[in-house]
Amino acid sequence: MTTSPTDAAAAAARALLASESVGVLSTISVHRAGTPYGSITPYALGADGAPLLLLSGLAAHTHNLRADPRAGLFVGDRSAAADPQAGARVSLMGRAALLRAEAEPDARARYLDRWPRAAQYLALKDFAFWRLEIEEARLIAGFGEIRWLTL
Amino acid sequence: MTTSPTDAAAAAARALLASESVGVLSTISVHRAGTPYGSITPYALGADGAPLLLLSGLAAHTHNLRADPRAGLFVGDRSAAADPQAGARVSLMGRAALLRAEAEPDARARYLDRWPRAAQYLALKDFAFWRLEIEEARLIAGFGEIRWLTL
Repeated sequence: MTTSPTDAAAAAARALLASESVGVLSTISVHRAGTPYGSITPYALGADGAPLLLLSGLAAHTHNLRADPRAGLFVGDRSAAADPQAGARVSLMGRAALLRAEAEPDARARYLDRWPRAAQYLALKDFAFWRLEIEEARLIAGFGEIRWLTL
Repeated sequence: MTTSPTDAAAAAARALLASESVGVLSTISVHRAGTPYGSITPYALGADGAPLLLLSGLAAHTHNLRADPRAGLFVGDRSAAADPQAGARVSLMGRAALLRAEAEPDARARYLDRWPRAAQYLALKDFAFWRLEIEEARLIAGFGEIRWLTL
Protein backbone atom coordinates (compact mmCIF):
# COMPACT_ATOMS: atom_id res chain seq x y z
CA MET A 1 0.00 0.00 0.00
CA THR A 2 1.39 3.40 -0.93
CA THR A 3 0.46 6.72 0.61
CA SER A 4 0.47 9.90 -1.45
CA PRO A 5 2.22 12.99 -0.01
CA THR A 6 -1.21 14.61 0.26
CA ASP A 7 -2.65 11.68 2.20
CA ALA A 8 0.38 11.69 4.49
CA ALA A 9 0.02 15.43 5.08
CA ALA A 10 -3.70 15.08 5.83
CA ALA A 11 -2.90 12.31 8.30
CA ALA A 12 -0.25 14.51 9.93
CA ALA A 13 -2.71 17.41 10.17
CA ARG A 14 -5.34 15.17 11.77
CA ALA A 15 -2.76 13.76 14.20
CA LEU A 16 -1.69 17.27 15.23
CA LEU A 17 -5.31 18.35 15.77
CA ALA A 18 -5.88 15.22 17.87
CA SER A 19 -2.77 15.73 20.01
CA GLU A 20 -3.42 19.41 20.80
CA SER A 21 -6.51 20.89 22.44
CA VAL A 22 -6.13 24.67 22.15
CA GLY A 23 -6.00 26.88 19.08
CA VAL A 24 -6.30 30.52 18.11
CA LEU A 25 -9.66 31.22 16.54
CA SER A 26 -9.72 33.94 13.89
CA THR A 27 -13.04 35.64 13.34
CA ILE A 28 -14.15 38.81 11.59
CA SER A 29 -14.68 41.57 14.12
CA VAL A 30 -18.06 43.20 14.56
CA HIS A 31 -16.48 45.71 16.95
CA ARG A 32 -14.05 46.93 14.27
CA ALA A 33 -15.90 45.97 11.13
CA GLY A 34 -14.13 43.53 8.87
CA THR A 35 -10.85 43.30 10.78
CA PRO A 36 -9.68 39.80 11.71
CA TYR A 37 -9.68 39.10 15.43
CA GLY A 38 -7.75 36.33 17.18
CA SER A 39 -8.76 34.67 20.44
CA ILE A 40 -7.54 31.60 22.27
CA THR A 41 -10.01 28.75 22.03
CA PRO A 42 -9.98 25.27 23.50
CA TYR A 43 -11.47 22.60 21.26
CA ALA A 44 -12.35 18.94 21.04
CA LEU A 45 -12.83 16.93 17.87
CA GLY A 46 -16.06 15.43 16.60
CA ALA A 47 -16.27 11.89 15.22
CA ASP A 48 -15.72 13.35 11.73
CA GLY A 49 -12.70 15.38 12.85
CA ALA A 50 -14.44 18.77 12.89
CA PRO A 51 -13.42 20.99 15.83
CA LEU A 52 -16.05 21.45 18.52
CA LEU A 53 -15.90 24.76 20.39
CA LEU A 54 -17.65 25.68 23.63
CA LEU A 55 -18.30 29.40 23.36
CA SER A 56 -19.77 31.95 25.72
CA GLY A 57 -22.60 34.00 24.26
CA LEU A 58 -20.93 37.03 25.88
CA ALA A 59 -17.55 36.58 24.15
CA ALA A 60 -16.37 38.82 21.30
CA HIS A 61 -15.66 35.86 18.99
CA THR A 62 -19.22 34.61 19.47
CA HIS A 63 -20.67 37.99 18.50
CA ASN A 64 -18.38 37.88 15.47
CA LEU A 65 -19.47 34.38 14.40
CA ARG A 66 -23.14 35.28 14.73
CA ALA A 67 -22.58 38.11 12.24
CA ASP A 68 -20.21 36.19 9.93
CA PRO A 69 -19.63 32.44 10.36
CA ARG A 70 -16.35 32.40 8.44
CA ALA A 71 -13.51 31.47 10.76
CA GLY A 72 -9.99 30.11 10.99
CA LEU A 73 -8.50 27.89 13.65
CA PHE A 74 -4.74 27.85 14.03
CA VAL A 75 -3.23 24.95 15.97
CA GLY A 76 0.49 24.65 16.64
CA ASP A 77 2.59 21.93 18.20
CA ARG A 78 3.07 23.31 21.70
CA SER A 79 5.91 20.90 22.43
CA ALA A 80 7.91 23.05 19.99
CA ALA A 81 7.23 26.19 22.05
CA ALA A 82 10.92 27.13 22.21
CA ASP A 83 10.95 27.62 18.44
CA PRO A 84 7.34 27.83 17.25
CA GLN A 85 8.35 28.27 13.63
CA ALA A 86 10.17 24.95 13.67
CA GLY A 87 7.15 22.98 14.88
CA ALA A 88 4.36 21.58 12.76
CA ARG A 89 1.15 23.58 12.66
CA VAL A 90 -2.15 23.47 10.90
CA SER A 91 -4.35 26.36 9.89
CA LEU A 92 -8.01 25.49 9.27
CA MET A 93 -10.47 27.66 7.40
CA GLY A 94 -14.20 27.13 7.31
CA ARG A 95 -17.53 28.10 8.78
CA ALA A 96 -18.72 27.84 12.35
CA ALA A 97 -22.28 26.96 13.23
CA LEU A 98 -24.16 26.36 16.45
CA LEU A 99 -24.25 22.61 17.00
CA ARG A 100 -27.56 20.91 16.30
CA ALA A 101 -29.30 19.80 19.51
CA GLU A 102 -29.16 16.10 18.58
CA ALA A 103 -25.37 16.27 18.24
CA GLU A 104 -24.87 17.87 21.64
CA PRO A 105 -24.66 14.79 23.92
CA ASP A 106 -21.78 13.38 21.84
CA ALA A 107 -20.06 16.80 21.74
CA ARG A 108 -20.43 17.18 25.48
CA ALA A 109 -18.82 13.79 26.14
CA ARG A 110 -15.97 14.46 23.74
CA TYR A 111 -15.36 17.94 25.09
CA LEU A 112 -15.35 16.86 28.74
CA ASP A 113 -12.97 14.06 27.88
CA ARG A 114 -10.45 16.67 26.67
CA TRP A 115 -11.42 19.46 29.03
CA PRO A 116 -12.76 18.04 32.31
CA ARG A 117 -12.75 21.54 33.83
CA ALA A 118 -15.32 22.63 31.24
CA ALA A 119 -18.03 21.07 33.41
CA GLN A 120 -18.30 24.43 35.21
CA TYR A 121 -18.98 26.25 31.92
CA LEU A 122 -21.47 23.63 30.76
CA ALA A 123 -23.48 24.41 33.88
CA LEU A 124 -23.79 28.03 32.75
CA LYS A 125 -26.66 28.95 30.47
CA ASP A 126 -24.67 31.25 28.19
CA PHE A 127 -22.25 28.62 26.87
CA ALA A 128 -23.08 26.66 23.75
CA PHE A 129 -21.32 24.26 21.40
CA TRP A 130 -20.26 25.37 17.95
CA ARG A 131 -18.84 23.20 15.18
CA LEU A 132 -16.21 24.37 12.73
CA GLU A 133 -16.97 22.94 9.31
CA ILE A 134 -13.52 22.64 7.74
CA GLU A 135 -13.42 23.85 4.14
CA GLU A 136 -9.68 23.90 3.81
CA ALA A 137 -6.60 23.14 5.84
CA ARG A 138 -3.03 24.26 5.45
CA LEU A 139 -0.32 22.11 7.02
CA ILE A 140 3.08 23.63 7.67
CA ALA A 141 5.47 20.90 8.69
CA GLY A 142 8.61 22.90 9.31
CA PHE A 143 10.01 25.69 7.21
CA GLY A 144 9.14 25.50 3.54
CA GLU A 145 7.07 22.31 3.68
CA ILE A 146 3.61 23.66 3.13
CA ARG A 147 0.53 22.35 1.43
CA TRP A 148 -3.18 22.98 1.12
CA LEU A 149 -5.39 20.07 2.07
CA THR A 150 -8.96 18.98 2.22
CA LEU A 151 -9.47 17.02 5.44
CA MET B 1 -0.23 59.74 41.36
CA THR B 2 -3.20 57.53 40.55
CA THR B 3 -3.53 55.15 37.63
CA SER B 4 -6.89 54.47 36.03
CA PRO B 5 -7.90 50.84 35.36
CA THR B 6 -7.62 51.59 31.63
CA ASP B 7 -4.09 52.95 31.99
CA ALA B 8 -3.13 49.93 34.06
CA ALA B 9 -4.60 47.58 31.46
CA ALA B 10 -2.77 49.37 28.63
CA ALA B 11 0.47 49.09 30.59
CA ALA B 12 -0.18 45.37 31.16
CA ALA B 13 -0.88 44.87 27.44
CA ARG B 14 2.34 46.66 26.48
CA ALA B 15 4.31 44.63 29.03
CA LEU B 16 2.92 41.38 27.65
CA LEU B 17 3.76 42.39 24.07
CA ALA B 18 7.29 43.29 25.21
CA SER B 19 7.83 40.02 27.07
CA GLU B 20 6.63 37.74 24.26
CA SER B 21 7.99 37.57 20.71
CA VAL B 22 5.60 35.31 18.79
CA GLY B 23 1.94 35.78 17.96
CA VAL B 24 -0.73 34.38 15.71
CA LEU B 25 -1.43 36.74 12.83
CA SER B 26 -5.00 36.74 11.52
CA THR B 27 -5.44 37.90 7.94
CA ILE B 28 -8.24 37.68 5.41
CA SER B 29 -7.61 34.84 3.00
CA VAL B 30 -7.20 35.45 -0.70
CA HIS B 31 -7.12 31.69 -1.27
CA ARG B 32 -10.58 31.25 0.28
CA ALA B 33 -12.03 34.68 -0.19
CA GLY B 34 -12.97 36.50 2.97
CA THR B 35 -12.25 33.72 5.44
CA PRO B 36 -9.92 34.59 8.34
CA TYR B 37 -6.61 32.77 8.25
CA GLY B 38 -4.24 32.31 11.20
CA SER B 39 -0.48 31.88 10.96
CA ILE B 40 2.31 31.94 13.51
CA THR B 41 4.35 35.10 13.30
CA PRO B 42 7.41 36.26 15.21
CA TYR B 43 7.51 39.96 15.92
CA ALA B 44 9.58 42.74 17.45
CA LEU B 45 8.29 46.08 18.69
CA GLY B 46 9.02 49.49 17.20
CA ALA B 47 9.90 52.49 19.35
CA ASP B 48 6.20 53.42 19.37
CA GLY B 49 5.13 49.91 20.39
CA ALA B 50 3.78 48.84 16.98
CA PRO B 51 4.63 45.22 16.08
CA LEU B 52 7.24 44.78 13.35
CA LEU B 53 6.86 41.63 11.26
CA LEU B 54 9.41 40.11 8.90
CA LEU B 55 7.34 38.44 6.18
CA SER B 56 8.24 36.33 3.17
CA GLY B 57 6.76 37.53 -0.09
CA LEU B 58 5.92 33.88 -0.80
CA ALA B 59 3.86 33.34 2.37
CA ALA B 60 0.07 33.08 2.36
CA HIS B 61 -0.35 35.81 5.01
CA THR B 62 1.69 38.22 2.86
CA HIS B 63 -0.52 37.58 -0.19
CA ASN B 64 -3.48 38.21 2.09
CA LEU B 65 -2.13 41.51 3.47
CA ARG B 66 -1.33 42.78 -0.01
CA ALA B 67 -4.99 42.29 -0.93
CA ASP B 68 -6.42 43.52 2.41
CA PRO B 69 -4.21 45.15 5.06
CA ARG B 70 -6.62 44.53 7.93
CA ALA B 71 -5.07 42.14 10.42
CA GLY B 72 -5.12 40.87 13.97
CA LEU B 73 -2.22 39.78 16.12
CA PHE B 74 -2.94 37.53 19.07
CA VAL B 75 -0.25 37.25 21.74
CA GLY B 76 -0.59 35.00 24.76
CA ASP B 77 1.54 34.53 27.84
CA ARG B 78 3.43 31.36 26.93
CA SER B 79 4.53 30.79 30.51
CA ALA B 80 0.86 29.89 31.13
CA ALA B 81 0.96 27.20 28.44
CA ALA B 82 -0.45 24.52 30.76
CA ASP B 83 -3.70 26.49 31.00
CA PRO B 84 -3.75 29.05 28.18
CA GLN B 85 -7.14 30.40 29.21
CA ALA B 86 -5.79 31.33 32.65
CA GLY B 87 -2.93 33.41 31.29
CA ALA B 88 -3.07 37.02 30.17
CA ARG B 89 -3.34 37.64 26.45
CA VAL B 90 -3.76 40.57 24.16
CA SER B 91 -5.52 40.67 20.82
CA LEU B 92 -4.53 43.54 18.54
CA MET B 93 -6.50 44.74 15.54
CA GLY B 94 -5.23 47.12 12.93
CA ARG B 95 -3.68 47.50 9.51
CA ALA B 96 -0.38 46.16 8.25
CA ALA B 97 1.79 48.10 5.83
CA LEU B 98 5.19 47.55 4.29
CA LEU B 99 7.67 49.48 6.37
CA ARG B 100 8.98 52.71 4.87
CA ALA B 101 12.60 52.40 3.75
CA GLU B 102 13.85 55.04 6.20
CA ALA B 103 12.41 53.07 9.13
CA GLU B 104 14.12 49.83 8.11
CA PRO B 105 17.53 50.17 9.81
CA ASP B 106 15.86 50.66 13.19
CA ALA B 107 13.43 47.78 12.54
CA ARG B 108 16.30 45.53 11.50
CA ALA B 109 18.21 46.25 14.71
CA ARG B 110 15.15 45.73 16.90
CA TYR B 111 14.15 42.55 15.12
CA LEU B 112 17.63 40.99 15.28
CA ASP B 113 17.81 41.85 18.95
CA ARG B 114 14.75 39.68 19.54
CA TRP B 115 15.36 37.15 16.79
CA PRO B 116 19.09 36.75 16.15
CA ARG B 117 18.40 33.79 13.87
CA ALA B 118 16.45 36.07 11.53
CA ALA B 119 19.77 37.19 10.02
CA GLN B 120 19.44 34.29 7.57
CA TYR B 121 16.03 35.54 6.38
CA LEU B 122 17.22 39.13 6.14
CA ALA B 123 19.83 37.92 3.66
CA LEU B 124 17.05 36.61 1.40
CA LYS B 125 15.54 39.01 -1.12
CA ASP B 126 11.94 37.93 -0.62
CA PHE B 127 11.65 38.94 3.05
CA ALA B 128 10.48 42.43 3.97
CA PHE B 129 9.44 44.28 7.12
CA TRP B 130 5.82 45.12 7.75
CA ARG B 131 4.41 47.26 10.55
CA LEU B 132 1.10 46.62 12.26
CA GLU B 133 -0.61 49.91 12.97
CA ILE B 134 -2.65 49.14 16.09
CA GLU B 135 -6.17 50.53 15.93
CA GLU B 136 -7.51 48.65 18.90
CA ALA B 137 -6.34 46.21 21.52
CA ARG B 138 -8.24 43.84 23.72
CA LEU B 139 -6.61 42.67 26.92
CA ILE B 140 -7.86 39.55 28.62
CA ALA B 141 -6.24 39.23 32.03
CA GLY B 142 -7.73 35.97 33.22
CA PHE B 143 -11.30 34.81 32.90
CA GLY B 144 -13.85 37.60 32.81
CA GLU B 145 -11.45 40.52 33.10
CA ILE B 146 -11.64 41.95 29.64
CA ARG B 147 -11.38 45.41 28.23
CA TRP B 148 -10.94 47.26 24.94
CA LEU B 149 -7.99 49.61 24.81
CA THR B 150 -6.27 52.10 22.62
CA LEU B 151 -2.52 51.60 22.94
